[in-house]
Amino acid sequence: MDINQFIKSSFGQWRSQRSAHHLIFSHFEAVQSVIDIVGLAPDDPAVLALCQNNDIDPQRIASPFRMSWEGESDWNEDQNEELKGTTVLVPVPDLSFPNRGKLLRDQGYAETMPAVGDYHLTDDGTFVLLTQYERAAAEEKIWFVNPNLRFRISMIKSSDGVGVITASFSSEIRSLKS
Amino acid sequence: MDINQFIKSSFGQWRSQRSAHHLIFSHFEAVQSVIDIVGLAPDDPAVLALCQNNDIDPQRIASPFRMSWEGESDWNEDQNEELKGTTVLVPVPDLSFPNRGKLLRDQGYAETMPAVGDYHLTDDGTFVLLTQYERAAAEEKIWFVNPNLRFRISMIKSSDGVGVITASFSSEIRSLKS
Repeated sequence: MDINQFIKSSFGQWRSQRSAHHLIFSHFEAVQSVIDIVGLAPDDPAVLALCQNNDIDPQRIASPFRMSWEGESDWNEDQNEELKGTTVLVPVPDLSFPNRGKLLRDQGYAETMPAVGDYHLTDDGTFVLLTQYERAAAEEKIWFVNPNLRFRISMIKSSDGVGVITASFSSEIRSLKS
Repeated sequence: MDINQFIKSSFGQWRSQRSAHHLIFSHFEAVQSVIDIVGLAPDDPAVLALCQNNDIDPQRIASPFRMSWEGESDWNEDQNEELKGTTVLVPVPDLSFPNRGKLLRDQGYAETMPAVGDYHLTDDGTFVLLTQYERAAAEEKIWFVNPNLRFRISMIKSSDGVGVITASFSSEIRSLKS
């Protein structure tokens, strides 16, 4: 499985159940959401803008895509905060190691700002993404249990990468093929 | 990491947060529990009995241990059902492939009966356990994020091994070293 195959396998609409464990206080959070993943043309203006902002030659990129989500949390004290968003993602494979690369995003998860992560694909087809933010670090693993079921584990760590603050698990069931 | 190292790293008391996703109905279940894992002597009567019941030469086994748990679920309609149990586990490494083997248990998770699972340790130190029950199959992955934090993913599948019925994620934080 290469990065293009992994991304194409992800296209479609997914019904996601996410459980977050806030480890210090043993708190559980449950989030239900719908996630849409659609392919973008390599010359889509949003893709070209993201490449330009990161000084990346658009010829070097793998399948770019857009991910959108809309969800509900059982732990939403601020009723005005919407669990809704959309982000453009552009993988840039490493020239020497094709299973590794950078993932450009015009908006990150842990902080609402552009982010660049380091990804690699393991031999057993797990996509691993490490992203360093200013105040935190995120580590994410995504794999397919079967073509219509994806699991996603993510950790938010303190910025020194040592302490795990939040661990979360998502099970994502395909509801529509794109 | 071999099986004995993996088991010894697990000794102690763990505070566990488990989220189960019942996939068909998109239901969330949250369980908090305390798990105790203690080593047993290879000639402990419970270990010898489990070997005998499975026709295993006690000379062949790796570190046997006892796991006990006591927990509370937020989804416990039957108030009489206690999330409490204890089980003796005995790994029996394969003679030819030391990172694979059988795991004997005097009580399984998915059904309250003795069970024999197939385990293997992956190159990155993940313990994978597959157990076939009469009416279901269970697949479990356990790995250490750091010496005091374990993650555990488990799936209950239909007995044909195809449909995933329940997916669950546990984060386990060490509270006491044994």
